[in-house]
Amino acid sequence: MIRILDTTTHDDVLQILRQRSVHRDDQTESVVKQIIADVRQRGDAALLENARRFDAQGLESLVVSEEEIASAVVPAHHELAIRTAYERVLGFHQTQLARITEGWIGSKNQFRWSKGDDPGIGQRLLPVSSAGVYVPGGNATYPSSVIMNAAPGFAANVSDIAVTTPARADGTLADSVLLALRTVGVKRAYKIGGAAAIAALALGTETIKRVDKIVGPGNRFVNEAKHQLWGQVGLDGYAGPSEVCVLADDAADPRFAAADLLTQIEHAPDNAGFLVTLSRAKLDQILQEAEAQLKGAPREATMRQALREQSLAIVARDLTEALDLVNEIAPEHLTLAVKDPAAAMEGVQNAGCILLGEQTPESAGDFCLGASHTLPTSGAARWQSPVNVLDFLKLQSVARLSSEALQPLIPVIEAFGEMEGFPTHGFGASIRRT
Amino acid sequence: MIRILDTTTHDDVLQILRQRSVHRDDQTESVVKQIIADVRQRGDAALLENARRFDAQGLESLVVSEEEIASAVVPAHHELAIRTAYERVLGFHQTQLARITEGWIGSKNQFRWSKGDDPGIGQRLLPVSSAGVYVPGGNATYPSSVIMNAAPGFAANVSDIAVTTPARADGTLADSVLLALRTVGVKRAYKIGGAAAIAALALGTETIKRVDKIVGPGNRFVNEAKHQLWGQVGLDGYAGPSEVCVLADDAADPRFAAADLLTQIEHAPDNAGFLVTLSRAKLDQILQEAEAQLKGAPREATMRQALREQSLAIVARDLTEALDLVNEIAPEHLTLAVKDPAAAMEGVQNAGCILLGEQTPESAGDFCLGASHTLPTSGAARWQSPVNVLDFLKLQSVARLSSEALQPLIPVIEAFGEMEGFPTHGFGASIRRT
Repeated sequence: MIRILDTTTHDDVLQILRQRSVHRDDQTESVVKQIIADVRQRGDAALLENARRFDAQGLESLVVSEEEIASAVVPAHHELAIRTAYERVLGFHQTQLARITEGWIGSKNQFRWSKGDDPGIGQRLLPVSSAGVYVPGGNATYPSSVIMNAAPGFAANVSDIAVTTPARADGTLADSVLLALRTVGVKRAYKIGGAAAIAALALGTETIKRVDKIVGPGNRFVNEAKHQLWGQVGLDGYAGPSEVCVLADDAADPRFAAADLLTQIEHAPDNAGFLVTLSRAKLDQILQEAEAQLKGAPREATMRQALREQSLAIVARDLTEALDLVNEIAPEHLTLAVKDPAAAMEGVQNAGCILLGEQTPESAGDFCLGASHTLPTSGAARWQSPVNVLDFLKLQSVARLSSEALQPLIPVIEAFGEMEGFPTHGFGASIRRT
Repeated sequence: MIRILDTTTHDDVLQILRQRSVHRDDQTESVVKQIIADVRQRGDAALLENARRFDAQGLESLVVSEEEIASAVVPAHHELAIRTAYERVLGFHQTQLARITEGWIGSKNQFRWSKGDDPGIGQRLLPVSSAGVYVPGGNATYPSSVIMNAAPGFAANVSDIAVTTPARADGTLADSVLLALRTVGVKRAYKIGGAAAIAALALGTETIKRVDKIVGPGNRFVNEAKHQLWGQVGLDGYAGPSEVCVLADDAADPRFAAADLLTQIEHAPDNAGFLVTLSRAKLDQILQEAEAQLKGAPREATMRQALREQSLAIVARDLTEALDLVNEIAPEHLTLAVKDPAAAMEGVQNAGCILLGEQTPESAGDFCLGASHTLPTSGAARWQSPVNVLDFLKLQSVARLSSEALQPLIPVIEAFGEMEGFPTHGFGASIRRT
């Protein structure tokens, strides 16, 4: 059910992994190009047409009304779950902001430092003015994505956060999504899905004020739209199909390892599971247990397809090789089901989210640990962070020299002007010589 | 020589500004697509062919040899300038790293915090494994770009930093660039320019190990290559033509204001200068002074073209409106030539680099203040930071729950599994119920 590789084929493993990449095809590219051009040209009309065509035939308004948000009702245990998740995610990111600003001098999220004679050289840290959150819809309902992408923005003190998500066929949103919007405190929300939603947030229309930064996961149209709009709006990064890597040593409980492997491939058949063990025996135990858990599971077919088509089980020679493989995989989620997970973590260079030990289920990370579940996929953990407060902040370089501090720099500036062939650069300094 | 707008046309100003965008055209797109495909397929052969065609006909090796780097000689005052700039830029970013990590708990660039019962939930901060720096060549020579992009990476403790820059027609690099490579301590450098260089850094070839993150400015081919490779490699952002905005009140010295306006449009005719004053009289004074400084300047034609085609001079009603305009412009560089620049800065939401007062020349920021000169352009200052240590760092979310800490979260996870239609997510938690 899953392709199994052992250590003798280590190079093959690397080759297979290296072939992973972001999904892009000509047809998606051209469809999305047209949608963006259409939104740019016709604004709201294009959005409404698009939403009616793909999501809700009779949709009358793009705007999620205050009344819809206010009147959402869900079972009490769902409401409690939404509130708990929100408080944890907000708190996690407020703590992150506090930790960052602790190191900064002065108030107002601003730090400056001096060196030698300089009266002030440093950086200001500010929230972006506005942010847009894309919440997927379609086959599933994602109240968690509202929380996981909007709460870090509110923690960063972004005052204007817009959420957009496709409506259901009858033009409504799920109560759980509406309740998440209410809980998080989103003031503007729209019923737009796919590439058109990203275009609307990036470019603005009559109804929708453009935003400075867009975060949130989506399908290939959403990612393609982000790709095409790179440079015109801030982006979190490519967020493709879900991935999980479970690293299990011989002490790992196969039941837990199997459950964690299956959790992250439940979303869609293009999800990828990677199982790395230190022995063939443990690998077989975990796969046997996975087989038992799969049987009769509501989304068995999806998970089986993901295992068959996108996944790999690998026996590593030892923990060192296992960690090498993990770093090559650079998985979105990594479970360390090993005896000393904290020690193993020291060897993890590339992973979006690391869950240590056997009592930290993958699904806890998805829903309520506190960190965002919007994580780098497809190897992007090599350079990209999970969505976090820094996504909603930006730096400005700041400098203020006195005449005295400038004088010794004038020859430096003149020299660079000479070396680079820009005499006016030198003149801008020498004109201030005292 | 420059288009002048006064406050009665405020809406027109905004409309003009809103039309600015990243440069993209079909021809560049298709040329770059071919180059990337070629580098992917043929590796070094494609790179060498490309470099011979566009840069140096007789080029024999893509690699800048240790000998070349070791033997570079420049005049003493150039060497001093390079060393001074390097020390200031390195120091600035080392201070930034220290400020950030100060707020973090524990050593090894790692911070974690607990909340309630959780044994550990937090984030790890790590440098990326490798980074690539693009240094433009062609019409000019940029030792400063080596420093401004590589030094922040070294400050972030990235061990592997590769630099690539086009060779001159005779296959050599300028001594000043070689000396900058030696001063900064770059271990690998390549003679490749344009889109091929970005492809090589992102994808790797026989000779060139791929990197995790690419930073550095470039022409439209470089930016288009970055755009196309979004998601496959980490990127700093779109770095288009240089921009400056000089905000001058009635107390401003026209000589300094004019010099700062001209400095940043000296690079190329596509550079843009924005002059915002609070009176027509001051605007006229500054433009008159600019005219005097332009006359006979070595790059007069370039600057005149930039002023004529890309620039705007605007009279604002008052400081509030002037700052509104600045925030709409979101300039790469902003000079605050006003009585109380620190107070004015509080109103600046969007700018890459802010130079306060009359003794902080634009060209000081370009060459030696300490912050990187690679800054967001074309309005990207709305969301993007200057190149800084955070470009070379990434976060990992980390969590370790005890069984006790997990128990109260199990119903939350189950509830989300129900709401979102992912029962295996719930199962991953409930299987751990004690």
